[in-house]
Amino acid sequence: MPALPHITAFRASPDGGRGLSRDIRVRWAMYELDQPFAVDLKSFAELKEPAHLALHPFGQIPTYQDQDVALFESGAIVLYLAERHPGLLPDGVPARFQAISWLFAALNTVEPTIFEYGLARVLERQKVWFAERQEMLATRIRRTLSFLAERLGDADWLDDRFTCGDLMLVTVLRRLHGSGLLEEFPTLAAYVARGEARPACQRALADLAAEAAAAKGN
Amino acid sequence: MPALPHITAFRASPDGGRGLSRDIRVRWAMYELDQPFAVDLKSFAELKEPAHLALHPFGQIPTYQDQDVALFESGAIVLYLAERHPGLLPDGVPARFQAISWLFAALNTVEPTIFEYGLARVLERQKVWFAERQEMLATRIRRTLSFLAERLGDADWLDDRFTCGDLMLVTVLRRLHGSGLLEEFPTLAAYVARGEARPACQRALADLAAEAAAAKGN
Repeated sequence: MPALPHITAFRASPDGGRGLSRDIRVRWAMYELDQPFAVDLKSFAELKEPAHLALHPFGQIPTYQDQDVALFESGAIVLYLAERHPGLLPDGVPARFQAISWLFAALNTVEPTIFEYGLARVLERQKVWFAERQEMLATRIRRTLSFLAERLGDADWLDDRFTCGDLMLVTVLRRLHGSGLLEEFPTLAAYVARGEARPACQRALADLAAEAAAAKGN
Repeated sequence: MPALPHITAFRASPDGGRGLSRDIRVRWAMYELDQPFAVDLKSFAELKEPAHLALHPFGQIPTYQDQDVALFESGAIVLYLAERHPGLLPDGVPARFQAISWLFAALNTVEPTIFEYGLARVLERQKVWFAERQEMLATRIRRTLSFLAERLGDADWLDDRFTCGDLMLVTVLRRLHGSGLLEEFPTLAAYVARGEARPACQRALADLAAEAAAAKGN
């Protein structure tokens, strides 16, 4: 077992270093919580090898290992870190589980359609149905964003203070950069910018950009 | 605040009582944990009213309220129940967070493509691209199921014993009933059947079928 917590990430991220890979959630959380960590960069081939599949049953990133646990799934890892170190979960069961509700909402209610929208841009761009189906997905995304904007109102964060729920939701909404959809909801665009401006997020984004640049240089 | 925990569910579930709505996860968990609860059935119109939106920012089901908390998102509710009552989480941080990793994997890695596959059958059935796109989604689902079958092997459950991770994953895989995809992976089909056969799941399914029958009668 390593002395320092280890996470896994893409050696050559498909997003070219824009910080859309799910390991950004773990890096950002670690920086928010002031925890040192090491990153093991994996090639796509290495992700499907038995050694990695033992850690991550679906051969994906991120994983997280420390002296106590071996975890997969960004949601589980962020929740573990938030429980272990103070800073990303409020005190008291009601507020704590409100933040955890948002953590799950980001991953199970908000992300799937946004992810599908982005994936179609890769897998279905040449299909005759591409434009019509993108518009169907955009309509579903707008409906979700309307509810979100309504709830957020003019607040800075979902709850009284920044939590792991905000962290997760900002990483999900960042996937919309370049689509124009976020800009249709100015308070949500400002919310995402507010999250990205946090020093811990900036550090995570800088690491990912630097790793992508290094991978390109090889 | 009600004395008994209250959950919300569809008054007339779109699945006609087959137990695919996400409240089955909460009902099943409550029965596993031997906790009494009451169900508030909501019409689609009621789900979008301010009173419900205050509980669920996206106007969906399920929600959960007891004397301490008000929660939304089936994942958060099941986790809360599993933390509060013994039976769905193993002892010890490593085993506990392994189960939580599976809980998130069910919702963020396995469910999105399966959900999209089912949704397309409702929204895109008349589109010229329907068959071709269903096959693309089926291919993605098969890949996920292959990894799952490989990890499960010939074990009864994902970990040493049934956990909230299994409960969640079974409810996600049940969405494939009727597609033929589950049957391509006999150990996974048996895993789902094993979960469904648990008395707590049977009770939840019976409740949902009875509510659907009552809604039809109205």
